Amino acid sequence: MQLYTYFRSSAAFRVRIALNLKGLAYEAIPIHLLRGGGEQLQEAYRAVNPEGLVPALVDNGATITQSMAIIEYLDETHPVMPLLPQDALGRARVRALAQMVACDIHPIDNLRVLRYLVKELGVPEEAKTEWFRHWVREGFAAIERHLSRDSATGRFCHGDTPTMADCVLVPQVFNARRFDVDLAPYPTIARIHAACMELPAFQAAQPSQQPDAES
Amino acid sequence: MQLYTYFRSSAAFRVRIALNLKGLAYEAIPIHLLRGGGEQLQEAYRAVNPEGLVPALVDNGATITQSMAIIEYLDETHPVMPLLPQDALGRARVRALAQMVACDIHPIDNLRVLRYLVKELGVPEEAKTEWFRHWVREGFAAIERHLSRDSATGRFCHGDTPTMADCVLVPQVFNARRFDVDLAPYPTIARIHAACMELPAFQAAQPSQQPDAES
Repeated sequence: MQLYTYFRSSAAFRVRIALNLKGLAYEAIPIHLLRGGGEQLQEAYRAVNPEGLVPALVDNGATITQSMAIIEYLDETHPVMPLLPQDALGRARVRALAQMVACDIHPIDNLRVLRYLVKELGVPEEAKTEWFRHWVREGFAAIERHLSRDSATGRFCHGDTPTMADCVLVPQVFNARRFDVDLAPYPTIARIHAACMELPAFQAAQPSQQPDAES
Repeated sequence: MQLYTYFRSSAAFRVRIALNLKGLAYEAIPIHLLRGGGEQLQEAYRAVNPEGLVPALVDNGATITQSMAIIEYLDETHPVMPLLPQDALGRARVRALAQMVACDIHPIDNLRVLRYLVKELGVPEEAKTEWFRHWVREGFAAIERHLSRDSATGRFCHGDTPTMADCVLVPQVFNARRFDVDLAPYPTIARIHAACMELPAFQAAQPSQQPDAES
């Protein structure tokens, strides 16, 4: 398998965690999101993924895009170390938690959106940063409330083994920290993040450990 | 089953289509997104869904949130008229197409984001509309390229029966039209949209047919 990735992309980070949790080897193909106006927007990569976003996974010649679709594909094709629970309600809960990040926080704070704010709308740097923090706070408050009131929450987002929800939550915590979002109001998120980061699969997937990492 | 819904919410629209395709009866509980500052943000609804977003589905006392998670739940618990293909690659493709809308277009153009642009950042009405159109165009161009080059595309997004990808795409086309986005550059999307709208399940789910519809 080949994974088109960028060390700091939180969507690629999600997939790297899933691959590591399942013990699947892969070749990392770095796509630099800033160099030359963004390698992800150039024709060579658009031929792989017309959307011009990372990650993309190539498995036996087939290209799969969208991080949550990739994780579910890996889970279906490599069922060892399942990343979704066995019951329909549990699966729905894990998917919903993942989507609370992947639909309702991350896309609004994505690089291309922040760029549009600054370049097209002339939003000052400080207001851009506040935008970023606002959507993280909105989303994290809802996730915290969801996690803290539900007995299905365990050591991880759902029970005592990591699921897709943890694969998606942890990279968002990294992003939040990079923008100095105070995590004190989200003790359950912080606790689960710490539990995840004790695991080698999460450690090895983090941005600083990637071959294309920059300081 | 009860569905918390708003006639114009495209995320609720997705779930209404799925329920109709499967022939499942449900009680619609309208949540007015504009009235009184937004009923979805009030404590009564936050107790149902801490995120303060519609839709939410209640089934046998359990609450499920996030439209794609709800659709997958319905598909797992009511397998007749499957909304995902049988093969892992096909499933990944349908999920990715749905996520290209549900992650990469809709959240950026959602009501709360447009409100923030206007109220917090003072973005003029015209620039707000251009923002909306920009993200639809970016996303539709990628989806069009994906659909038009892939032989898995049929009468619908994936083959000749509707899937979750169609449930998610059609409401986004409704939104695009509401903001006068020219659909001429996306002939495959327009063709699939038309095929979907010939089906009673899609017709009955559309905003104008809802009990809480307004002109």
